Amino acid sequence: MNVVQPATQPLSAELIGRFRKIVGDKYAVTDTAEIAPYVTEERDLFHGKSPLVLRPGSTEEVSAICKLASEHRVALVPQGGNTGLVGGQTPHNGEVVVSLRRLDQIRDIDTASNTMTCEAGVVLQVAQQRASEVDRLFPLSLGAEGSCTIGGNLSTNAGGTTALAYGVAREMALGLQVVLADGRILNGLSKLKKDNTGYDLRNLFIGAEGTLGIITAATLKLFPKPHAIETAFVGLKSPAAALRLLSISQNEAAGTLTSFELLSDLAVHFSVRHGIDIRDPLSGSYPWYVLMELSSPRDDARAALESILAQGLENGVVEDAVIAANLSQRSAFWKLRDEMSAAQKPEGGSIKHDISVPVVAVPDFIEQANAAVMKLIPGARPVPFGHLGDGNIHYNVSQPVGGEAADFLARWNEVNAVVFDIVLRMGGSISAEHGIGVLKRDELPHVKDKVAIELMRGIKAMLDPLGIMNPGKVL
Amino acid sequence: MNVVQPATQPLSAELIGRFRKIVGDKYAVTDTAEIAPYVTEERDLFHGKSPLVLRPGSTEEVSAICKLASEHRVALVPQGGNTGLVGGQTPHNGEVVVSLRRLDQIRDIDTASNTMTCEAGVVLQVAQQRASEVDRLFPLSLGAEGSCTIGGNLSTNAGGTTALAYGVAREMALGLQVVLADGRILNGLSKLKKDNTGYDLRNLFIGAEGTLGIITAATLKLFPKPHAIETAFVGLKSPAAALRLLSISQNEAAGTLTSFELLSDLAVHFSVRHGIDIRDPLSGSYPWYVLMELSSPRDDARAALESILAQGLENGVVEDAVIAANLSQRSAFWKLRDEMSAAQKPEGGSIKHDISVPVVAVPDFIEQANAAVMKLIPGARPVPFGHLGDGNIHYNVSQPVGGEAADFLARWNEVNAVVFDIVLRMGGSISAEHGIGVLKRDELPHVKDKVAIELMRGIKAMLDPLGIMNPGKVL
Repeated sequence: MNVVQPATQPLSAELIGRFRKIVGDKYAVTDTAEIAPYVTEERDLFHGKSPLVLRPGSTEEVSAICKLASEHRVALVPQGGNTGLVGGQTPHNGEVVVSLRRLDQIRDIDTASNTMTCEAGVVLQVAQQRASEVDRLFPLSLGAEGSCTIGGNLSTNAGGTTALAYGVAREMALGLQVVLADGRILNGLSKLKKDNTGYDLRNLFIGAEGTLGIITAATLKLFPKPHAIETAFVGLKSPAAALRLLSISQNEAAGTLTSFELLSDLAVHFSVRHGIDIRDPLSGSYPWYVLMELSSPRDDARAALESILAQGLENGVVEDAVIAANLSQRSAFWKLRDEMSAAQKPEGGSIKHDISVPVVAVPDFIEQANAAVMKLIPGARPVPFGHLGDGNIHYNVSQPVGGEAADFLARWNEVNAVVFDIVLRMGGSISAEHGIGVLKRDELPHVKDKVAIELMRGIKAMLDPLGIMNPGKVL
Repeated sequence: MNVVQPATQPLSAELIGRFRKIVGDKYAVTDTAEIAPYVTEERDLFHGKSPLVLRPGSTEEVSAICKLASEHRVALVPQGGNTGLVGGQTPHNGEVVVSLRRLDQIRDIDTASNTMTCEAGVVLQVAQQRASEVDRLFPLSLGAEGSCTIGGNLSTNAGGTTALAYGVAREMALGLQVVLADGRILNGLSKLKKDNTGYDLRNLFIGAEGTLGIITAATLKLFPKPHAIETAFVGLKSPAAALRLLSISQNEAAGTLTSFELLSDLAVHFSVRHGIDIRDPLSGSYPWYVLMELSSPRDDARAALESILAQGLENGVVEDAVIAANLSQRSAFWKLRDEMSAAQKPEGGSIKHDISVPVVAVPDFIEQANAAVMKLIPGARPVPFGHLGDGNIHYNVSQPVGGEAADFLARWNEVNAVVFDIVLRMGGSISAEHGIGVLKRDELPHVKDKVAIELMRGIKAMLDPLGIMNPGKVL
């Protein structure tokens, strides 16, 4: 997918030399082969180009880069683990890439204040592990956690499978250090949970996809580490039944209900069919499944989970259920879930949506979207799955069996249109957790409140008047 | 306390007539006696004046007011329950007051999505009650809950006694409707927990104290209603011991630990001495106390609390403790806590601070602040109490026994200076939950990151270029 955008001026050798001086020869990449991993992404969906990848080693270097870039109107694309799904981290028009991966220090862990201060390039899994080593939990968890970075997680306001209990990335950040487009450094690192001294600047940069500044470090919340985790795989008749089970679960488990994933039968079948060593945990077959997890500081999660499932069975909400007997069964349940995106690939073309609607509307959304999509493309196979507790469904549609992938994918925008139409009527969002990037940029003005767009443009103009920060993304 | 600020132009009778037309005769208040309650506040600390109080009945009327005010550069002061503690809601210079109290509808309660959409003028206690009626919890809780409003809570980012588990007001809002200075309406009401479509505008207005726009409605999160609440009153030797008890409690109870209040002996003595029907729950006397509460969806809170206290006793952290045996004992514990501010009045002059420091630093802060204050004013009596779990201490100082209140209060700024100095060295905040208003406005530029102040000014200029929205507050 290519984005039409005015190309930036070719960089002179002299200017490249000045950027090189900031980070040192070793960390200014100009070799095409070495640049390749930074300009393409894992799904091979976006292909960018760049004359220069800078790998700064400190916030001050990032600041110097931005200052120089401002002086010469050089467009920059900040990049973390390069795992984004909407093309936000790709230099589509020859921009200079600023890779934050070398900023990988955990500056401070404070177990009394329950905070951890990470630089932007810390890999999410490393942050999770370091928290775990001090008997704390850093709860953010998503498919790319082995390579995505804290800076990227915050810039895209990542969600994932634990948002139900712990919130999205936004809610895990207490403070930020940010380099602005002109090189100024906003020192907003803070361990404070309560601080009402002026406007909330932190949340402007979180979720801004690098278009307002470059996050270089963050103070994150840590949580008590759960000592009992119990996971169930449940068969149900419908999303409506899953919604009733969610209500029972929240009533019984409140904040200890940490995941509640709704899975369509097709999503499960694809995983079982194409994944390695993946089995359906239930003997019978059901049209819908729920993967749910309780995490408790005490040893009461099992009793709570059993009580929830017993109520579900009694009320006719649950058809069958199995509780993971040990850690390896728990991993097997999650592997089935985690493979869902990958398992759609062997089934041919897949048109993706990352939408959210009010939780109450999820069953209606799925019913209406299925009907609309199958009317538009007879034989199309909806594969919905996602985070029911957050109203966030990855509403993916696989091509008809035996059809041509290219023909199907050519109808991407048409399918989007009918799905988004339903989403918007329900007060939903066309991008629940992946962001806007370039993928949904042109759609945004059509779906967003007009005044909101005006304010966004005003904020962009104020913080990045030259338009050098990740140009062409979001707005 | 009076704020020097250029007075706004006197309103012409013609202009008053045009404002009157927007809200209707009945809701345009010009009578001095009727205006009085809007221009003074409960502690009688700030006295403002206003020629006109407008009481709009809809968002559209608020919009029309702002549009007209913009056209004629009429300064507006938005007001909710008029319970703010920093003079943010007071018309210090003859501004027109826009009271939101008539916007008091709860527009929607959605128990499946766990959301409640309230207009700005809904009283906090009413929101709590309506949530409770549908077996849900709206957890925000603070002293003024019987009269403060949702709009005010969000505009000041209120904290209170449950922030430890549920977060501050900011974390309870999913979406907002806001009227901008020029009358544009930002329609950001939303039930979505995950929505990554552009910049986060909501958090700009939350905590902005009405200086960027007027919040007219909000979609709020609801939580499962806890079915077991257990409360303990604990005697300890020191804040350091309290910190160790906090750590044990979080490890054992995680998110079910909903309050953890640290109380100095003097704070407790004042409450017992001056409150009606208030007794010390413990027979012995201790230098420090903790009031802690666990709220669980299941009936396991008692066992968890007992286990925490047993560990505390065993480790020498807890000296003595009593668990509330019933609801009336629980109320008595909380009354002791809730009366603390009022009980300082009969002890003479009191110099107040609403500070936060990283949780780990609270014991050091109290030790250093006590030493500094008592060195500055021999005989001064520090009465610290507050939300240890959030690092938020109401560090109040009562005058020496037998001294003159006026002499003591004349040293307000001196005492502030030594306390804030310690706070800032520890990476703390000079306003944890009350906001800036006019009370701390002149202090803000000295304590805040320079770039943060620049950005705040930029945001203010963008959203309120004429400076009519609550002028002279915050910045």
